[in-house]
Amino acid sequence: MNENNADVKWRGNNASRELLKRALKVIPAGIPGHLGPVESQFIPVDSYPFYVDKAQDSYFWDVDGNRYIDFMCAYGPNVLGYNNAVVEAALSAQRWKGDCMALPSARQVELAELLCDTITIADWAFFAKNGNDVTSLAVMASRAATGRKKILLVKGGYHGVAPWTQKLGRAGITPEDVANNLYVEWNNIPQFEQIVRDNPGQIAMFMATPYHHPVFQDNELPAEGYWQSIRKICSDNGIVLVVDDIRAGFRCALGGSADYFGFKPDMACYCKAIANGQNISALVGTNALRNAVSDVFYTGSYWGSSVAMAGAIATLTELRRLDGANLMIQKGRKLTDGLVAAAADVGLTLKVSGMPSMFYMRITNDDSLMMSQEFCAETAMRGVFFVSHHNHFINCSLTDADIAQTIDVAHEAFSVVARRHGLHS
Amino acid sequence: MNENNADVKWRGNNASRELLKRALKVIPAGIPGHLGPVESQFIPVDSYPFYVDKAQDSYFWDVDGNRYIDFMCAYGPNVLGYNNAVVEAALSAQRWKGDCMALPSARQVELAELLCDTITIADWAFFAKNGNDVTSLAVMASRAATGRKKILLVKGGYHGVAPWTQKLGRAGITPEDVANNLYVEWNNIPQFEQIVRDNPGQIAMFMATPYHHPVFQDNELPAEGYWQSIRKICSDNGIVLVVDDIRAGFRCALGGSADYFGFKPDMACYCKAIANGQNISALVGTNALRNAVSDVFYTGSYWGSSVAMAGAIATLTELRRLDGANLMIQKGRKLTDGLVAAAADVGLTLKVSGMPSMFYMRITNDDSLMMSQEFCAETAMRGVFFVSHHNHFINCSLTDADIAQTIDVAHEAFSVVARRHGLHS
Repeated sequence: MNENNADVKWRGNNASRELLKRALKVIPAGIPGHLGPVESQFIPVDSYPFYVDKAQDSYFWDVDGNRYIDFMCAYGPNVLGYNNAVVEAALSAQRWKGDCMALPSARQVELAELLCDTITIADWAFFAKNGNDVTSLAVMASRAATGRKKILLVKGGYHGVAPWTQKLGRAGITPEDVANNLYVEWNNIPQFEQIVRDNPGQIAMFMATPYHHPVFQDNELPAEGYWQSIRKICSDNGIVLVVDDIRAGFRCALGGSADYFGFKPDMACYCKAIANGQNISALVGTNALRNAVSDVFYTGSYWGSSVAMAGAIATLTELRRLDGANLMIQKGRKLTDGLVAAAADVGLTLKVSGMPSMFYMRITNDDSLMMSQEFCAETAMRGVFFVSHHNHFINCSLTDADIAQTIDVAHEAFSVVARRHGLHS
Repeated sequence: MNENNADVKWRGNNASRELLKRALKVIPAGIPGHLGPVESQFIPVDSYPFYVDKAQDSYFWDVDGNRYIDFMCAYGPNVLGYNNAVVEAALSAQRWKGDCMALPSARQVELAELLCDTITIADWAFFAKNGNDVTSLAVMASRAATGRKKILLVKGGYHGVAPWTQKLGRAGITPEDVANNLYVEWNNIPQFEQIVRDNPGQIAMFMATPYHHPVFQDNELPAEGYWQSIRKICSDNGIVLVVDDIRAGFRCALGGSADYFGFKPDMACYCKAIANGQNISALVGTNALRNAVSDVFYTGSYWGSSVAMAGAIATLTELRRLDGANLMIQKGRKLTDGLVAAAADVGLTLKVSGMPSMFYMRITNDDSLMMSQEFCAETAMRGVFFVSHHNHFINCSLTDADIAQTIDVAHEAFSVVARRHGLHS
C-alpha cells in the first residue's frame, strides 16, 4: 500500500443500506435497472456503495463518505470528468436564459452544425433524450426509407429497452414485438450473407455496435475486413447500415467509431458521452435518409431543452480540443497494462478485451466470474469502483496518479483473492 | 389598446427565419416534432416566432426580441413559471454535488417518498425520462401482471411516439407494432363493454388520459359516472386500469387527475409538470403492480440523474404549498371567461373546452380552424402566444395583469379577424 491509499479506510455501507431500506418501500426493486444491486447477483452487496453523495473529476463519494476512483463513469456519460468546469459554465450560462421552453433555442441549430462538423458521415442530426429514442427512430426511418419491415441485429447486442430490443420470454414482451427481428452472430460474414439471401428485398436495416460489447463476457473487436464486407453487402442489397455508437461514441474516434474501424454507416446513434451527463441523445445520418427521418412522427416533451444542448456543445468542443478519444485510449492502455501485470504478479490471469477506453476485464482463473466479483469487492473497500459484469469507462480527467493508485489497489485486491483461492502464498 | 401593451411593437421574425434556414441544412424538417413550423400548416409562419432566446415566469422572448405571454408553457412543463427561484435554487444545490453519476443519489428515494405522499394511489414510483418511457412501461407491466397481450386505448388518444402508440399508415409503422391494440371511443361505455365481451380474458390494460384532449378538436371531460363504470368493468375483468396523466397531471388535482374525477386507477403516468421543465417522468402505481414492474427489464443512461430529481422535489413541494392545481384552474377560468366575452363583443363565438388550467379554444364561426389560426397570428404580433391546434396551459406565475393584458390583446385580435371576415364593422 503506497502513500496515496494508506489513508483510505472503508467506512462501510450502512448509510447506503439504510437508504435502500427506504427505497424498497417506494420504488419497485429498490434501485431499478442496471444501476441496481437488489436483483443483481453479480454485485457484491456487502462491500458496495448503493447511493452516491457527490462526484468530481474521476471520483465519487458515496453516502457513507467513502471516495472512489470511478471506472463506470455513470455507465459512460462522464467523459470529461464529473462537474467539468467548462461544461458547467456553459450550463450556467444557458440556465439563466432558459431550458425547456415553448420553442427550441439557437442551441439546437448550433449543436446540429457542430455534430455535422465533427462526425464524418453526419449531414444532419436529430435530438432526443434516451439512446433508445434514437435507435428506435433509426428503425422507423429505415423502414420508411426502404418500405421493408425486417431488421437485422447482432445476437447479444444491446440497443436499449424498448420491446423490439428485448428477448421473447422477458416480462411484458409479446411475440409481435420481435416478429420482424432477424439475428446474426457478431463477426460472422457467411451467416450474414445467408440471412440476406434468405430474406430477399425484405431487410430494412442492419444495426450493430461498432464492436461487440455484451455484458458478462469478453468484448470483441471487428475481424479484419468485417465492416468493409458488411458495408458492401448492405449497399448491394439496399439495406440501411446503422451504427449504434451510444456506448462507444467519442471513446474510439471523435469522428465516429466507424472512422476508427474504417467504414461509413448510413446513420449513427449517440447518447452517453455526447454531453458529459446532460440528458440528450442524437441520431445522425447521410442526406439519403433525411426525408425518411422527416417523415417519421417523433417528438417528446423535453427534446428541445436548451441546457442539455449547451452542455453537448461544450462537451464536444472540449473533446475536440483535447483529442479526447485518443487521450482516453492512451489512459486506458496504461491502466490495463498495469492491471494485467499486477494480476500476473500474484499468479492470476486478467483478460482485458474491447477498446482500452472502455475495457472489459475478467480473471480467467475462474470462468464463473465469482473471482472477478470478489476482486471488485476488495477494490471497492479500497476506494476503486469496478464492476464484474460490464465494460468500464475511462474519462479525460483521469490522472497518472489515479492510474498508479488504481494499479496499487488492484495489486492488493488480486493478492487477497489469489490467497483466498489458494493460488498464491 | 391599454397602457400595458401600448409599447408592444412587433419586431418581425427575421432572426427566427435566418436560424430556420441554417436548421434546414442540418436538421431533418428544420424543427422536428410538435414544436415545428415547417411541416405544420396549422402554424401562421408569417407572424410566428420559431426560436426562443430566454424565458422568465409566464414570458418568453424570441430571437428577434419580441416578448410573449406564453400559454403553451413548453407544452406543459412550465407549471410554476419559467426560471422559478425555488426550483432553480434546488437545481443549483444539487448541481455542485452531481447530476448523472455512477449510482443514484438519495434524491431518488426522497422523490419517490414525496410522490407516494402526494399522489393518492401511489404505493411506489419508477423514474425515467420521457412520458413515453412510462406509458410503455405501463403496457409491459400490465402484460407481465396479467399474462395477456391486448391493450385497449381510446380512439384519437395520445400516449407518445413509440410505434405501439401510432397509427398504421404512418411512416415506419408495421402491422405488428399495433397488432395487439384495441380502440374504443371516449365516453362510450356500451362499446367498452362490447369490446371486453369480445375479447374475454385477453385484455391486459385500458389506458386513457383522465379526460379526452386530442389536437384539432374540442376537448371532452368524462361523462357523469364514466370513470366509475370503467373502474368497475376493469376490476370485474382483471384489466389493469392506467391513467396517462402526462399532460393533465398536477393541473386537475395534486393527488392525481383521477382524484378530480373521483376514481382510482391501478397505475398513473407523469411527466411534463412534474419538475417545471427538468427532464424526468414517473410511473406510479399500487402494490398489486409492484412485482410486475420489478420484473420488466427497463433502464436508461440518464434515469438516475439527480438534478432533475431535485427539481421535481422542489416543484412538487411548491405545487403543494401553493395548492397549484386549484390556483391554475382559477386563473384559467378567469382568463377563458374574459376571452369568451371579448370574442362575443365583436360578434364571434369562442368555444372553450377541457379543464380551465389547460383549455382548448376555437372560434366556432369557422369550422376549418383558419379563423382560429388568424387569431393566433394577430395575438402573436401583439405579444401573446396561443396555438390553434392544441390545448393551452396555465402556470402558477401568471398574474392578473397578464390575464388582463391577454384579454385586451385578444379583443383586438378578435376584432381584426371579425372585420376581415365581414362579421363585425
